[in-house]
Amino acid sequence: MKYNHSFFNDYSEGCHPDILEILNNTNLEQEAGYGEDSISKKAINLIKEEIKNNDVDIHFVSGGTQANIVVLSSILKPYESIIAAETSHINVHEAGAIEATGHKINLIESHDGKLNTEQVWNVLESHTDEHMVKPKIVFISQSTEIGTVYTKDELKKLYYFCKENDLYLYIDGARIASAVASEESNMSLADVTEFSDAFYIGGTKNGVMLGEAIVIKNPEIKENFRFHLKQKGALLAKGRIVGAQFSGLFENSLYLKNAKYANKMASELSHGIKDLDYEFLSDSTTNQIFPIFPNEIVDKLKEKYGFYVWNKIDKNNSVIRLVTSWVTPEEKIIEFINYLRNIK
Amino acid sequence: MKYNHSFFNDYSEGCHPDILEILNNTNLEQEAGYGEDSISKKAINLIKEEIKNNDVDIHFVSGGTQANIVVLSSILKPYESIIAAETSHINVHEAGAIEATGHKINLIESHDGKLNTEQVWNVLESHTDEHMVKPKIVFISQSTEIGTVYTKDELKKLYYFCKENDLYLYIDGARIASAVASEESNMSLADVTEFSDAFYIGGTKNGVMLGEAIVIKNPEIKENFRFHLKQKGALLAKGRIVGAQFSGLFENSLYLKNAKYANKMASELSHGIKDLDYEFLSDSTTNQIFPIFPNEIVDKLKEKYGFYVWNKIDKNNSVIRLVTSWVTPEEKIIEFINYLRNIK
Amino acid sequence: MKYNHSFFNDYSEGCHPDILEILNNTNLEQEAGYGEDSISKKAINLIKEEIKNNDVDIHFVSGGTQANIVVLSSILKPYESIIAAETSHINVHEAGAIEATGHKINLIESHDGKLNTEQVWNVLESHTDEHMVKPKIVFISQSTEIGTVYTKDELKKLYYFCKENDLYLYIDGARIASAVASEESNMSLADVTEFSDAFYIGGTKNGVMLGEAIVIKNPEIKENFRFHLKQKGALLAKGRIVGAQFSGLFENSLYLKNAKYANKMASELSHGIKDLDYEFLSDSTTNQIFPIFPNEIVDKLKEKYGFYVWNKIDKNNSVIRLVTSWVTPEEKIIEFINYLRNIK
Amino acid sequence: MKYNHSFFNDYSEGCHPDILEILNNTNLEQEAGYGEDSISKKAINLIKEEIKNNDVDIHFVSGGTQANIVVLSSILKPYESIIAAETSHINVHEAGAIEATGHKINLIESHDGKLNTEQVWNVLESHTDEHMVKPKIVFISQSTEIGTVYTKDELKKLYYFCKENDLYLYIDGARIASAVASEESNMSLADVTEFSDAFYIGGTKNGVMLGEAIVIKNPEIKENFRFHLKQKGALLAKGRIVGAQFSGLFENSLYLKNAKYANKMASELSHGIKDLDYEFLSDSTTNQIFPIFPNEIVDKLKEKYGFYVWNKIDKNNSVIRLVTSWVTPEEKIIEFINYLRNIK
Repeated sequence: MKYNHSFFNDYSEGCHPDILEILNNTNLEQEAGYGEDSISKKAINLIKEEIKNNDVDIHFVSGGTQANIVVLSSILKPYESIIAAETSHINVHEAGAIEATGHKINLIESHDGKLNTEQVWNVLESHTDEHMVKPKIVFISQSTEIGTVYTKDELKKLYYFCKENDLYLYIDGARIASAVASEESNMSLADVTEFSDAFYIGGTKNGVMLGEAIVIKNPEIKENFRFHLKQKGALLAKGRIVGAQFSGLFENSLYLKNAKYANKMASELSHGIKDLDYEFLSDSTTNQIFPIFPNEIVDKLKEKYGFYVWNKIDKNNSVIRLVTSWVTPEEKIIEFINYLRNIK
Repeated sequence: MKYNHSFFNDYSEGCHPDILEILNNTNLEQEAGYGEDSISKKAINLIKEEIKNNDVDIHFVSGGTQANIVVLSSILKPYESIIAAETSHINVHEAGAIEATGHKINLIESHDGKLNTEQVWNVLESHTDEHMVKPKIVFISQSTEIGTVYTKDELKKLYYFCKENDLYLYIDGARIASAVASEESNMSLADVTEFSDAFYIGGTKNGVMLGEAIVIKNPEIKENFRFHLKQKGALLAKGRIVGAQFSGLFENSLYLKNAKYANKMASELSHGIKDLDYEFLSDSTTNQIFPIFPNEIVDKLKEKYGFYVWNKIDKNNSVIRLVTSWVTPEEKIIEFINYLRNIK
Repeated sequence: MKYNHSFFNDYSEGCHPDILEILNNTNLEQEAGYGEDSISKKAINLIKEEIKNNDVDIHFVSGGTQANIVVLSSILKPYESIIAAETSHINVHEAGAIEATGHKINLIESHDGKLNTEQVWNVLESHTDEHMVKPKIVFISQSTEIGTVYTKDELKKLYYFCKENDLYLYIDGARIASAVASEESNMSLADVTEFSDAFYIGGTKNGVMLGEAIVIKNPEIKENFRFHLKQKGALLAKGRIVGAQFSGLFENSLYLKNAKYANKMASELSHGIKDLDYEFLSDSTTNQIFPIFPNEIVDKLKEKYGFYVWNKIDKNNSVIRLVTSWVTPEEKIIEFINYLRNIK
Repeated sequence: MKYNHSFFNDYSEGCHPDILEILNNTNLEQEAGYGEDSISKKAINLIKEEIKNNDVDIHFVSGGTQANIVVLSSILKPYESIIAAETSHINVHEAGAIEATGHKINLIESHDGKLNTEQVWNVLESHTDEHMVKPKIVFISQSTEIGTVYTKDELKKLYYFCKENDLYLYIDGARIASAVASEESNMSLADVTEFSDAFYIGGTKNGVMLGEAIVIKNPEIKENFRFHLKQKGALLAKGRIVGAQFSGLFENSLYLKNAKYANKMASELSHGIKDLDYEFLSDSTTNQIFPIFPNEIVDKLKEKYGFYVWNKIDKNNSVIRLVTSWVTPEEKIIEFINYLRNIK
C-alpha cells in the first residue's frame, strides 16, 4: 500500500507471531476434519475457561458476516424478525445478508450506536398482529460500529428485558475483545456470556489470520447447529486452522493483551487529536475513533495516511474513522499527531 | 488421531511447507482488505497464466460448499434449476445448501458419477412449461465423487451441448488438480477454462490450509459478483490469506506437483489391492479409490487405518473410500498393502 | 373451448349452483376481513363436524400449491427436508415452489404414486449426519397423481411409522373428496384427520370456484399459522368468499355427493374403455383414469375431446389422462365410448 | 357484525351485483385452466383499452400482498433492494413477505406517505459498494396508506428519475381506482401505465370478491412471468373467476364509477367532520380519511361504528381511519355526522 501508515482497519496485517508459530508447529499432524480435531477442542476448552462457563457450545467460522448469518437464521421462524440499530453492521454493511435468509430487521434510530430497553419496547408494542413480523432477536454490537461500548449494567438490563419478553439477545462481537479491554465497559467475557444468549468472539480484528468463535449459551440455539453451519457453507474442512489460531488467542489471554494494546494506541491518538481542539462523533474508549476535521485537513491527511471518511457533518467538515490494532506502531501515532499539528 | 494412518481424506494435514513459508514471509505487511490486496492480485495473475486466459474473473473463498452456493445462486432466476448427478456433492453432502438459496436440483441417475448430453437432454425435454422449473445450469464435478474423470472430449461435448441449449456449465473443482494430473482426463486447467462457464479450483484438498479459487469466464456471471460474495458471508476481510496460499500453489505449478504425487500414491495403493484380487466400485485414476472388501476385512482394516465406509454392496461386502494426498507417505501405502495381504 | 367435451381436468367449470347461491345470498352483508367473518366460522364448524374433531385449526386459502407452500414451509427448520414420491405434485408441477422456500425434497421412486414405510425408512437411514439434510415431513397425495388411493390400513401404518420416527405426515388433498368417495380407500375425512398431522381439503377440484381448506391437527403446526399465511400472500382480505363456498360444500355433504358422481363417471368411462380391450397405467378408483392407446387413436380422440397426453409408453403407444368431475354429463361418457369404438 | 355500520375497510361486502351476474352467467361454461380461458382474455382486452396500451402483459392474482410478492421478487437479483416509504404496506403490513423472498427494503421517512426524487437520490447516494445492497426498485402506493395521492406531475417526475437512474418504478394499486377517481391526482389509468414499469389494479377494494390485475409494461419484467406466478402459488386453476370479475369491472368503466362513489362518500364524511372543527392526519381526496379525535370521542364512536384506531397523537387524542366503498350507504354518513355532533 502506498500509505505512510494505514488506519483503515484492524485487519491490515496477517496474524500475531505467536499464532503463526502454532500453525507452524501443528502443520503436519493428521487431524479429523470439520472442526472435530484435537486442536479445535483444545481451543474450545481454553475459551470455556476464560468465559467461566463449561456449558456452552463453541463453533469456529471464517468471518463475522458468516457468523451473523448462521446464528440469526438458525434461531428464527420465517415470520420472526431482528431488532437492531439503524447503524448496525447487519443493516448497512452485509449486502442484505440477513434479508437474504428471509428475515426483516426492525430498525431503531440510535445516536450512539446502542439500544436501550425503552427503544426495544416501542418496537414490540407496535407489532401487534399477524399482518406484521414478530420481533424475536435483539441484535447489538459490542463495541458498536462507532466505537462506543455497553457497560455491564446496560447489558444486564437489556438481557433481563429480553428474557422477560421472550426475546433472544445476540451480540456481534467482531470487536468484543476491544470492548472487554475498555475500562468503560467494566465487563469480562464471562459477563458477556452471562448476559446474552449467543455471541461471537471476533478473531479477525484481534490478531488472527481469519476466524471467529461463535459461543452459544441458550440450549434452544445449540440444537443441530452444525446443520446450519454446513448449509451456509461455514463448516470448514480444516476447522483446525481456525481452532489453532484461537488456541493461540486464548493461551495466556493474548486476545486481551492484543486488545488492550490497540485501545491504548487509539487512546493516544484520540488525546493527541483532542489536544489540537478537534471534536469527535462519539465517545470511544475502544480501538476505533471518529474525529471531525475540516475537509481540507482531511485531504491533507489522505496524502500520508489511509482511513475511511465516515460521513459528512456539513458542507465543510467530515468525520473520519481511524482504527488501531494489536500491531499499530506507537511511532506512527506520534507521527500522525505531529503531521496533524503541522497542517492545521 | 488414533490411527496408524488416516486415509479419510485429503485435508487431514495443514498445508504444504512452501505455502506456510509465504504466509510467514508476508505476515506483517499492511494490505488492503476484502481481496483487494497485492498478494491476492499476484495469485490471480499466476492462475491466469496457468489457465492461459487473461479475461476471467477470479475470487477466493474459504470452502467448496461456499463456492458452490455463491456461484450457483448468483446465476439463477428464482424459477431456474440445476441439473446434477444423484451422487453429486450439492445433492447429497451440502445439507440442502442449494435448495436453501431457493433452487431445485434436477437429478440424473449415473453409475459412474458423470453426466452425458443424452441424459441432460432428457431432463430438458421433460420440462415443458411454467408449472415446472426451468433447468439452466449443468453441474458436474471433476474429478467426480467416486474418483472418475471426464475426458477432454467428454467435457467439450457437454460444453457445446450447453451452449446450444442456453445452459451454463459449472464445474465443482474440489479435486480439479487431481483430475488434471490424471493422464486419463487428458486436459489442462486451460482446457477446463475453455470448456466451462465457471468453475472453482480446490485448494483445501490440494495442499493449502483453506481456500478455493472461483474462476468465471462467462461475462454474465462476472457482473456484480462481489455483491453475491458479500451477501453469502464469503468475502474474507483478510482475503490476502487465501491469496497468499494460491500464489504458493501456482508458483512453479505446485498444485500439479501435489496432485500428481497424490494420484501416484492412490495408484500404488490401487494396484496393490488389485493384485490381491479385490474389485472396485469405479475406475479411478485420481486420488480417491473405492475398493470392495468383505465386511470382516473392513473391520480388521479399521483397527489400523482411518477411512469411510462408502456403502454396502450386499450383506457381506462393502465399498470403502481411501484417499491419498500431497503428503501421504509412500511407506504407509506399502504398510497398508502388507497388512491387507496378512489379514486376507 | 373448441372441444365436444373437455376431459382436461376437474376445474373447467365455475362452481356448483348451490354454492353460487350462497354467494348470492350473503353478498351484501358486512363481514370482518381476513377470515374472521361469521360465514367462514360457520364453514369451519361444518367441517369440524364432518371430520369428527373439534380440536383442529382450519384455514382457507385460494389454491393447492399455495396450501402446500404455506404448510410445509411453516413446519420445517432451514436444514429439514420433505420425503415425497418422484411423481408428486410438489416435485414436478409446482415450479420449484418448495425449494423456493428453502427446502430439499428427498425423492422416492414409486410405480403406483404411493409411499410405504420401508421406502421412507431407507431415506431416513441414508441421512446420517449434518452434511446432509434431515428429513422431517412425509408428503403424500390422496388420491395420488395417477389416480390411485391409499387404503385406511396403509395410511394408518404410514402415520404410526411417522410418529415413531419423529416425522410429520402431511396429505395433499387436492382430490381428497374423490379418494374418500372411492370404496377402495375405505376411509372417511375423520380417518384422514386421525391419521395425519395436517392436510388440505381441495375445493377447486370438487365444485367450488376456488379455495382449499387447510386442516391442522398437530398443535406444533397450529402455532402462529396466520403469520405464515400472511407472509406467503395467502391471507385473503375477503376470506368470506372461500368460507361461503366451503359452507356450501359441507352442508348436506355436498363434497361427497360431488365426488361420488365424479368417480361414477370415471368408472363408467373406465369400464367402457376396458371393454374395448385397452390397458391402463394405473388402477384408479377415483376421478382420474389413465388409459393407454395407440398414437393414432390418441390423435383421433383429440379431434373431438380435450385431455392431456400423460407420457409415452413406447414408440407407438401413449398414456392419456381423462378427468371427470361433479358436472361431467353422463351422455358425454357414452358419446366418448361410442366414438372410441368407432375409431378402433 | 355488531356495528351500526363498519368503516373498517372497503372489503366488508361481497361484490358489485353486476359482477356477480357475470359469474352466474358464465358459471357452467367449460374453460381452459390457469388463466388461459376466454373470459380472462376478454377482461384483459377491456383493461388494455382502458389503459390505452396494447403492449402490456396482464395477469390476475387473488390478493395484493401476493401481487407485490410476485412482481417484486421476479425483478430483483439476490443483492438488489427496494426503496419504499416507512409507512408502506410492504414494510409494515405484509408480515415480512418481501424479506421472505430475500430482499431488503430501504426505508424513507415520509410525512405524507409519498416519495420524491430527492429522497430516492439520497438512498442511492449512500449505497456505494458491494458491502451494501443495490437499490433497484422504487415502490410507491397510489393512493398511499394515508389516503394521499401522487399528482400526474409528481408521478411523471419520479418515473423519469427512475429511468435516468436505472431503477424500476412499481406501483401498489390496491386503491388505484380511488386515486384515479380523485380530481387531485389528475391522472387516468393510461397515465399510470405510461409513468411506471409495472403496477397492479386492485379489485378487492374496488368491488370484486377477490382479485387484482397485474399490469406489466417493461419487457424485462414480462419475461417468464408465469413461472414466478406458479412458484409463488399465485397461478389460479380457475383464473376465469378473477377474469370474469375484472371483465365486469372494466365493462362500462364500473371500476371508476365504484371509486367515484366511494370517494364522494369519504368527502361527505370528511366535510361533516371538518365542519365540527376536527383536524386530520393527512389531506385525503380518496376513500380513506384520518380524522383526529379526543379519546373519549373515539370511545363513544366505537359504540356504534367499526373502524381502526390508526395511532395516538398524544396522551388525549388519537387518529382513526374511516374507509368508504362503492357500497357505503349515504344515510350511514349522515347518521355518523349526526352522532358525532351529539357526542361532542
